[in-house]
Amino acid sequence: MRLNGFTKHPKIVIIGGGFGGIELVKSLKKLDGEIILIDRHNYHTFQPLLYQVATGSLQAESIAFPLRKVFNDQKNLTYVYANVLNINSDSNTITTSDGEVSYDYLVLATGSDTNFFGNDQIKHYTMPMKNITEALNLRSMILQNFEAAFVEEDPEKKQALLNFVIVGGGPTGVELSGAIAEFRNHVLAKDYPEHKKEDVKVYLIEGKTELLAAMSPEASSHAKEDLKKMGVEISNDVHVKSYDGELLTIDNGQTIRTKTVIWAAGVKGELPAGFKPGSVTKTNRVQVDTINRVHGYQNIFAIGDAAAMITLETPMGHPGVAPVAIQQGKQLGENLLKIIKGQDTKPFIYKDKGSLATIGKNKAVADLGKIHLHGFIAWIIWIFVHLMSLVGFTNRLIVFLSWASSYLTYNGETRLIIRRFNTKEMKVDPDGN
Amino acid sequence: MRLNGFTKHPKIVIIGGGFGGIELVKSLKKLDGEIILIDRHNYHTFQPLLYQVATGSLQAESIAFPLRKVFNDQKNLTYVYANVLNINSDSNTITTSDGEVSYDYLVLATGSDTNFFGNDQIKHYTMPMKNITEALNLRSMILQNFEAAFVEEDPEKKQALLNFVIVGGGPTGVELSGAIAEFRNHVLAKDYPEHKKEDVKVYLIEGKTELLAAMSPEASSHAKEDLKKMGVEISNDVHVKSYDGELLTIDNGQTIRTKTVIWAAGVKGELPAGFKPGSVTKTNRVQVDTINRVHGYQNIFAIGDAAAMITLETPMGHPGVAPVAIQQGKQLGENLLKIIKGQDTKPFIYKDKGSLATIGKNKAVADLGKIHLHGFIAWIIWIFVHLMSLVGFTNRLIVFLSWASSYLTYNGETRLIIRRFNTKEMKVDPDGN
Repeated sequence: MRLNGFTKHPKIVIIGGGFGGIELVKSLKKLDGEIILIDRHNYHTFQPLLYQVATGSLQAESIAFPLRKVFNDQKNLTYVYANVLNINSDSNTITTSDGEVSYDYLVLATGSDTNFFGNDQIKHYTMPMKNITEALNLRSMILQNFEAAFVEEDPEKKQALLNFVIVGGGPTGVELSGAIAEFRNHVLAKDYPEHKKEDVKVYLIEGKTELLAAMSPEASSHAKEDLKKMGVEISNDVHVKSYDGELLTIDNGQTIRTKTVIWAAGVKGELPAGFKPGSVTKTNRVQVDTINRVHGYQNIFAIGDAAAMITLETPMGHPGVAPVAIQQGKQLGENLLKIIKGQDTKPFIYKDKGSLATIGKNKAVADLGKIHLHGFIAWIIWIFVHLMSLVGFTNRLIVFLSWASSYLTYNGETRLIIRRFNTKEMKVDPDGN
Repeated sequence: MRLNGFTKHPKIVIIGGGFGGIELVKSLKKLDGEIILIDRHNYHTFQPLLYQVATGSLQAESIAFPLRKVFNDQKNLTYVYANVLNINSDSNTITTSDGEVSYDYLVLATGSDTNFFGNDQIKHYTMPMKNITEALNLRSMILQNFEAAFVEEDPEKKQALLNFVIVGGGPTGVELSGAIAEFRNHVLAKDYPEHKKEDVKVYLIEGKTELLAAMSPEASSHAKEDLKKMGVEISNDVHVKSYDGELLTIDNGQTIRTKTVIWAAGVKGELPAGFKPGSVTKTNRVQVDTINRVHGYQNIFAIGDAAAMITLETPMGHPGVAPVAIQQGKQLGENLLKIIKGQDTKPFIYKDKGSLATIGKNKAVADLGKIHLHGFIAWIIWIFVHLMSLVGFTNRLIVFLSWASSYLTYNGETRLIIRRFNTKEMKVDPDGN
């Protein structure tokens, strides 16, 4: 196994090339040793724009960037395309799909995955959207359901194909329901003149009293107001009881007959096996101290969504957002260099620069410290921040052009069913094209 | 079935939204009747650039364009997303995956598919590249094999992962082998510093004496010369005998141990079932007369790759290239309008405006009537012609930008494994992401 051939020390193994992992690698540029970055994708994903891939506004490949290319100039870094299966802390190794890798220091930057809260039926029938293939599957399903509605004669079945339910009123749920409502309001008449606008329903279901509960009350109420104006039917303070692929039941007694339920109602840490039970929280994050060291381990660290830094100020850990991962990645890199030199480390303090969520064209909400913005200005800030955070100059240009074109025409060019989705198996069709 | 609900006449059903189908629909804009365009993809594919998707230079979605959007303004057109299974000429209907559709006139614009010449082993183990999903599969396989070579210790197995064989020296084979050679020559050292340039082999195997046999002798010899300079090992006058997923055997006795064989050695017409045996040629095209009417039928027509218009001047039918399909589509539209009005039709005469093939950066060949160009000028013409033929303004901009970026850096951003390819099953992994 070539993976046993890394002999330089100190050897830092990082699992995951998301926002945190990339920042950590960069911050270790001066390490006189070896960094091994392992990811099951050969690319970094810009997750905040997945919903635009899913709703046909952006090309999938413009929000992905090859990990090898990110680090073309960093000579102490080796990328490995593999799945990590197990942490073997007794032997300081990890087991991957391509064999074992040993480490001096291990960092988990594995992010999070959709949380179905143990409900297998909901896991099977609803659509998650945490990575590029899931976003492409969701896009295929939405478009296929519009096509199926066109040839469906039974009115009840047709309506089920045109009812879109989004569960979860956080940023993902708000952005998705806004994007589907815009599709209904602006694209439908052009692409599907046979469907009437009022036949297409967009439902947003949230367990808390407000949408965007992590943002300011101003942001929450503006988001709700905007979505309502766009025709989204919002239910707060309710939970999904069951969904069998046909009928969605809510705990207030309401039922919706629908073929599309998007599950954006929760996340959990994505962890390989092998951690001591006591170090993992209920939402499957590993507990870390203030320098992101995992409880109960000397040389294992975790950053971003996979980590829960529980302190008096952050009793639930930090929010699962990109800035936390980025700041933790950067600082852990600096701390690891200090640890290696035997110097004192610096505890992590999150600098919250604010939050943003977009609802539609010219519509967004922004909390920037005590300043709360909404509407066009917030939307322009959202666009600017997202363009600047994208990895890759060509990607930035392509996303900018796609947005400019959609802005002018309300009519993008990416409503493509790239691989047919089998809506019975709830998987992409491997024989399809 | 809503598909039975089309009641306007004359009703023209067109199968396939490729170059020919799109042009035909446009040319029927003035039809006072109903056009139904059926395609199993909801998008038009710009096939000439598939090889750049496969080799990681272009985003898949930038060479696809939603069919509904193409015809947003053409009110006599209805698009149907379905697979056509059978032609029932006795009842003037076709059977689709969504039910039956009746027609007054039927046009096959179904294009062509890869021809494995009945060899099931070759069909299973080699990679075709005739549509977007196949191009994405090929890209995944090439990149996965580079990744697998990195962790492979056995030198023979490693070499098999780094040997790339392209079978077929037509435009597709020439363009693919040129693109893989450029990857080897320019990207490898940046992305895979552990692989040496000379370890990666690109083989091009062609049964005829020359490459690009359909072009001028000048074009053929320039292409060969350029590819040789780029390090492609070319074998002419030989045929593949067998390939079992590990060992490729050629009929001159040579064997190559390889994990990647790309099959660009032939095409055949892609036809639904139901044609009288006598109307179909050996390469599965339907024989048509000079107005593209299928032999033995009154109201069934075929254009482009699916049709073989066999005349004294074209004893093998026309070449399977986009300009033939486009010209036939346009003229058949005009002729159908005449037939409906009871007017005389006009026989089809192909206007050959020339052929182009690109080999690499600054390297292409062009036959323009009696003028034969090669090198930079031919390459600029190739770029211009392809950009202008792409459907969609944003697509054009995106492709242009991607090319400009690759031109300046030799280092695109699209080396992405979008869905892992299972190299044992030779299918995309439906559970993967």
